[in-house]
Amino acid sequence: MLRHDGRSSDQMRPLRIVPNYTKHAAGSVLLEFGETKVICTASVDEGVPSFLRNATPAQGWLTAEYSMLPGSTQTRSRRERPSPSGRSQEIQRLIGRSIRGIIDLTKCPDFTFTLDCDVIQADGGTRTASITGAYVALKIAVDKLLRSGKLNQNPLTDAVAAVSVGLRDSAVLVDLDYQEDSTADLDMNVVMTQSGKFLEIQGTAERAAFSKEQVLEIMNAAEAALNPVFDLQHEAADGREVES
Amino acid sequence: MLRHDGRSSDQMRPLRIVPNYTKHAAGSVLLEFGETKVICTASVDEGVPSFLRNATPAQGWLTAEYSMLPGSTQTRSRRERPSPSGRSQEIQRLIGRSIRGIIDLTKCPDFTFTLDCDVIQADGGTRTASITGAYVALKIAVDKLLRSGKLNQNPLTDAVAAVSVGLRDSAVLVDLDYQEDSTADLDMNVVMTQSGKFLEIQGTAERAAFSKEQVLEIMNAAEAALNPVFDLQHEAADGREVES
Amino acid sequence: MLRHDGRSSDQMRPLRIVPNYTKHAAGSVLLEFGETKVICTASVDEGVPSFLRNATPAQGWLTAEYSMLPGSTQTRSRRERPSPSGRSQEIQRLIGRSIRGIIDLTKCPDFTFTLDCDVIQADGGTRTASITGAYVALKIAVDKLLRSGKLNQNPLTDAVAAVSVGLRDSAVLVDLDYQEDSTADLDMNVVMTQSGKFLEIQGTAERAAFSKEQVLEIMNAAEAALNPVFDLQHEAADGREVES
Amino acid sequence: MLRHDGRSSDQMRPLRIVPNYTKHAAGSVLLEFGETKVICTASVDEGVPSFLRNATPAQGWLTAEYSMLPGSTQTRSRRERPSPSGRSQEIQRLIGRSIRGIIDLTKCPDFTFTLDCDVIQADGGTRTASITGAYVALKIAVDKLLRSGKLNQNPLTDAVAAVSVGLRDSAVLVDLDYQEDSTADLDMNVVMTQSGKFLEIQGTAERAAFSKEQVLEIMNAAEAALNPVFDLQHEAADGREVES
Amino acid sequence: MLRHDGRSSDQMRPLRIVPNYTKHAAGSVLLEFGETKVICTASVDEGVPSFLRNATPAQGWLTAEYSMLPGSTQTRSRRERPSPSGRSQEIQRLIGRSIRGIIDLTKCPDFTFTLDCDVIQADGGTRTASITGAYVALKIAVDKLLRSGKLNQNPLTDAVAAVSVGLRDSAVLVDLDYQEDSTADLDMNVVMTQSGKFLEIQGTAERAAFSKEQVLEIMNAAEAALNPVFDLQHEAADGREVES
Amino acid sequence: MLRHDGRSSDQMRPLRIVPNYTKHAAGSVLLEFGETKVICTASVDEGVPSFLRNATPAQGWLTAEYSMLPGSTQTRSRRERPSPSGRSQEIQRLIGRSIRGIIDLTKCPDFTFTLDCDVIQADGGTRTASITGAYVALKIAVDKLLRSGKLNQNPLTDAVAAVSVGLRDSAVLVDLDYQEDSTADLDMNVVMTQSGKFLEIQGTAERAAFSKEQVLEIMNAAEAALNPVFDLQHEAADGREVES
Repeated sequence: MLRHDGRSSDQMRPLRIVPNYTKHAAGSVLLEFGETKVICTASVDEGVPSFLRNATPAQGWLTAEYSMLPGSTQTRSRRERPSPSGRSQEIQRLIGRSIRGIIDLTKCPDFTFTLDCDVIQADGGTRTASITGAYVALKIAVDKLLRSGKLNQNPLTDAVAAVSVGLRDSAVLVDLDYQEDSTADLDMNVVMTQSGKFLEIQGTAERAAFSKEQVLEIMNAAEAALNPVFDLQHEAADGREVES
Repeated sequence: MLRHDGRSSDQMRPLRIVPNYTKHAAGSVLLEFGETKVICTASVDEGVPSFLRNATPAQGWLTAEYSMLPGSTQTRSRRERPSPSGRSQEIQRLIGRSIRGIIDLTKCPDFTFTLDCDVIQADGGTRTASITGAYVALKIAVDKLLRSGKLNQNPLTDAVAAVSVGLRDSAVLVDLDYQEDSTADLDMNVVMTQSGKFLEIQGTAERAAFSKEQVLEIMNAAEAALNPVFDLQHEAADGREVES
Repeated sequence: MLRHDGRSSDQMRPLRIVPNYTKHAAGSVLLEFGETKVICTASVDEGVPSFLRNATPAQGWLTAEYSMLPGSTQTRSRRERPSPSGRSQEIQRLIGRSIRGIIDLTKCPDFTFTLDCDVIQADGGTRTASITGAYVALKIAVDKLLRSGKLNQNPLTDAVAAVSVGLRDSAVLVDLDYQEDSTADLDMNVVMTQSGKFLEIQGTAERAAFSKEQVLEIMNAAEAALNPVFDLQHEAADGREVES
Repeated sequence: MLRHDGRSSDQMRPLRIVPNYTKHAAGSVLLEFGETKVICTASVDEGVPSFLRNATPAQGWLTAEYSMLPGSTQTRSRRERPSPSGRSQEIQRLIGRSIRGIIDLTKCPDFTFTLDCDVIQADGGTRTASITGAYVALKIAVDKLLRSGKLNQNPLTDAVAAVSVGLRDSAVLVDLDYQEDSTADLDMNVVMTQSGKFLEIQGTAERAAFSKEQVLEIMNAAEAALNPVFDLQHEAADGREVES
Repeated sequence: MLRHDGRSSDQMRPLRIVPNYTKHAAGSVLLEFGETKVICTASVDEGVPSFLRNATPAQGWLTAEYSMLPGSTQTRSRRERPSPSGRSQEIQRLIGRSIRGIIDLTKCPDFTFTLDCDVIQADGGTRTASITGAYVALKIAVDKLLRSGKLNQNPLTDAVAAVSVGLRDSAVLVDLDYQEDSTADLDMNVVMTQSGKFLEIQGTAERAAFSKEQVLEIMNAAEAALNPVFDLQHEAADGREVES
Repeated sequence: MLRHDGRSSDQMRPLRIVPNYTKHAAGSVLLEFGETKVICTASVDEGVPSFLRNATPAQGWLTAEYSMLPGSTQTRSRRERPSPSGRSQEIQRLIGRSIRGIIDLTKCPDFTFTLDCDVIQADGGTRTASITGAYVALKIAVDKLLRSGKLNQNPLTDAVAAVSVGLRDSAVLVDLDYQEDSTADLDMNVVMTQSGKFLEIQGTAERAAFSKEQVLEIMNAAEAALNPVFDLQHEAADGREVES
């Protein structure tokens, strides 16, 4: 058996999305990729940061924050103070960039969206789960603004989801869990749009350098794996709890 | 009707405890007092902080941390950096003191317990919910240590739970929610043991100074309200999801 | 003899207040409870913090800070950086709340008062000495504003003082010094107004949980002990050095 | 003309490496990609960080830091305090990972290498210039350790260099300068070894999502561009100033 | 009249030293230069910082900290957090260097002395008052160590005191107060030993550059002014309150 | 031979100034005193800090920052975070004061000048090299503003340069390098104007207290050494690389 949990090499873990998981934020979900569980909330503030105040054309803003609860990891992790770790900052920059790739901020010039991704249980792939969940939370929040008339046009231009794909002994493995991640030769995070294009690829040699052919193979596997995710995201954004 | 949600003045909100809510920490629960929801985890580390290394008699240590997810509040709250706010520090010191009141640390000299209370949805009473949940998470962790033989004797000497009781126009109101809290004349947090004694009382005049008689009335109301909670805590610690 | 310094159980240490101890702050005192010595100053700034700028009705603000000189303790204590310790923040929040309990901030909407309590020698009871002294410093500053016509009406609605009361082997001990504090079963800080009401009670089981009856006993003892303090505060605020 | 400085689409800017640019660090270079200028130094310390102290097998450590002088950018940039910006942390993590990809740390178990990359003039591509220069500084330092007998075997297993490649209106542009970078649709950083494998690829859609074919095209262009760089690196490491 | 307070140009303000001002620190004084008032305490710890642990010859350590109470200045000054201001760090480095100039640390290799200088009222010359007072506090602490036998030989090799001297319209003014300081052309701090030598001179042109002749004139004036101070310091160190 | 590098006691190390060393800042130089190498840049911002916004008369502002690259010292020095060390703050305050001594800020009320002094190789005298180089960078920037018409009158009133002079065994040594600095009895930094006046003198007894006569001797030596430096500064400011 290739994988310790019985999955085939191209199989994602079960995906579950619970929409409206908390009540205060404009949008919120609990998203699970197997044992990885993330709470994503989308908060909406009127106004934009000062560096955008006189932008031409006028545009809104969107930013993301990522954190792990101390008890979410196998051994307790310390709260990241005084500032987020390098790893966390890198992840939240990635989440922000990825989501900004599918929103036209000139269509929501009066608003700042803050996407908070808080990992309550970690088992690999927390950054890709965060991107996938943050999109749903944002969609819920945007739909509310549209329904209430605070927004007149939909700023979302596409949907976005993400997955990590690894190589181990030349085999492509989709959606690495923690145990697989720690023995992979290469770990690549792939962020895609529903329209079939890529927004980010980040491949890091962990144990062995890699070739162009392997990059291509990985991108194909990611594409196949993410294809069914977009429908689940939209169903959840419409208020239904979904499971793959 | 006295209370906006239909409760009688001495009625707590529905209590729900989901044990083993996450899998990595030695003990974990999701605890809900109505719409207030807190994840409490108990982590166990071997060894003690340096200030206890040569203590006589040898003793273990227990500490608590408290935080709110940014999306847990009505308007998004900023992550507390570089250090926890004064309010959060006060709360986590209270949680730590309260739980240390029912553990004999000389009976677990080899261990440090860290109790993390992370509020995922706030509707008043987050500190008392945290104390009530942290005890259950700790109980689960201690029971595991006892079963595995890492602990030979039970260091827990009692059970602990807490509730906030308020005064409004001289009426005693048990378990204030956010809306009630913001219009109360007095807010008192009461921490009790199952054996019927008090570990902490903290009463703060919010709108009007108070009398000795009112303090007594409040302590009586807290006692009555907490009485049934201890059984629910122990049932949850035994692995069953409970609701009041 | 019950107490190591010969006091009876209900006897406070000698109280001494030196008004106008320093010359720059609008109000200042040196206050001593026995060997505990605190410099309290009240500074007055025009304007209010931004979160109150458009408050309705308009209101001023009052805040407190608490610190100990490094040499004030039995072994030198480090300066609290980068931020005040949890203990200091808890104390300065308590001081601020207590004093705000006797000032009507809508009657001084143009001013921010900052009360600095700096302990120069610590022997137990520094937080209650700080509250007691901060009130006098504030009274001096307010009287100046009234005399100069910058304030037209007196915003102070009452006087406030505080004392710590402990339990040891079921005996109530008023105004614990450091040595007593470290062996007490229970330590309760009581903040009262001259009109005989309570603003704060904070009781913490140090060695043993406590009962309702004990709380009542302590509140009675605090009331008796604080009664003569209010006159001394006002005499000092009028410019006379006083000693009990 | 495709590019504002007259370069062909596959042409790198002039590369210049001044070895031994400063005298205190074990290895140092000034490296220039056109108007981008970086000082890279390699410092060697005996011992390893505590998390590696009992590693099996024993291994050394290598870490990198990246910073920009305030005057290096078109408008002065503030020194990054209290901690490096998210961008800087992301870059220094990338530099560290990339260089660790070509060193066998079990062959230098007694040493920690610190690579400092300080940008004195920025014109795009500072992270790839830093990787390319840090390798040379490290090679100089390692060669010294080998000559002095402090190292018995060469821990370097390959050479490493990096380049950024962009897409604008579907055209592939190698080694983007600042002006090009700010108008590109896609910016991909490619880190390669002399043996023709990849250690990192990081592609970010700036203005338009991208396709698999474009990723392949970019990797081919990076490979062709970096090919001649490795010889220049080794000539510089041998003590000769080189220019492409 | 040359000076607003009636002093002659070479006249210091009244000096007052209250020894043993607080009881916990090994040595303590309240020192006043006119309206400038500083509490100086000397704390003694066994052991030395790690950078001195294996020094040859073995030596003790001495360090100083300087701070101003918020209420000590004409308008309230903020507590210096997260770290002391540049000004405060400069002053505490000066105090430490000055006092280290008259102590032979190889004669007290087992001890670290910490000198805390806390300004409770500022009216110019706080740094020179701090040096002058810190010496007395240290002398008291060292004498205790000698009497108790913890030290066998006196590490103090001389006495040290300091004064600021200014120039205004070419007139030399000794011991500037705050009002004079803010209109002086030049402000020079002079640190001397009882044996008539200089440990530090720091002259800063405030309004006009200065000449060699003026430096000489200032040093002469400082010497004359400090001459009688050393006797007062020693009398105070012997336990008597002194006033000039 | 008196000095390890063959210099006579009154001889400065070779001085080299490379103007326009980097291209983005308004003014920049690389300045070398022997093996001490500093990059100085002058940045110009429109506007002044808030504390000067309503100053009468209107005035501009000038500030300085000083830092050392980690690899600039004999053993790698850590980047100074979260804030500059006390030493660095003291140096940058000295640089700022010194340069403000030769600029009339009322003649450039619309501008803030920031002088960054970054040491790339340290061999003693980095603060005096920074002052000497910062003046040239500022002069280049001011000349540009004058030529472009953004300034109508020259705010520079004099030129400024600095040197450290030491005493060892009563011999005066000009321009101490690192090795000399660490064995000197006294180290004095002298900041002079081209017109022959002094802006700062800072003398610190390192191993022995000093006399008035020695101060005079040192000031004479500094004067003689700095005399030829001013011409080199102006030649460099005119765009020519100069060497003494």
